Amino acid sequence: MDTLSWSKSEKQIAQQAFNQAYKRECEALIQQIQEKFPKIVEPETLWELHDLLSNKRKEINEKYDYRYSIIIFVFARLIKEGWLDLSELQGLGKDKLSQINVLLNM
Amino acid sequence: MDTLSWSKSEKQIAQQAFNQAYKRECEALIQQIQEKFPKIVEPETLWELHDLLSNKRKEINEKYDYRYSIIIFVFARLIKEGWLDLSELQGLGKDKLSQINVLLNM
Repeated sequence: MDTLSWSKSEKQIAQQAFNQAYKRECEALIQQIQEKFPKIVEPETLWELHDLLSNKRKEINEKYDYRYSIIIFVFARLIKEGWLDLSELQGLGKDKLSQINVLLNM
Repeated sequence: MDTLSWSKSEKQIAQQAFNQAYKRECEALIQQIQEKFPKIVEPETLWELHDLLSNKRKEINEKYDYRYSIIIFVFARLIKEGWLDLSELQGLGKDKLSQINVLLNM
């Protein structure tokens, strides 16, 4: 893919969408934890919670990589996984939206 | 310290005391978590919980090392930290109890 240039307003839209997806994914994780570990009594459950948090934190840290060189791929992944809707990226240039669409259809 | 030999009944006492201290320390950690993180809403709090669990798990794993070559030191530490009472080791031979007492007075 060609290197894309990002206008100030596009950067704002991208940052907002990125933050929103991150917030949604973390909120889903919080809910998952509350459902899976409503009350911890046994040490073993404590370590299960720790394992889950370790795995999710690593996954989320790797996924939410805000670099303009790769953000198109990040957005396509977030849309595929349901953390972001394509409509939330309206306002980005056609070049970017069409690249995201290509990735979504792959 | 000399290498000590452990009778079957001493091993039972040691194992029980060890398990009891582990259970107490984990229960204290569970209580600490419930007090510090009564309701998680923000992602940042989730990662704070993860940091705490990572640190505590590492500390507990290192501390609770059940090898007869070092268990005297482990017991002395657990007593000093309040997870075990010396009375719970009654039934161990005088050689072992006196070594633990030496460590407690250091």
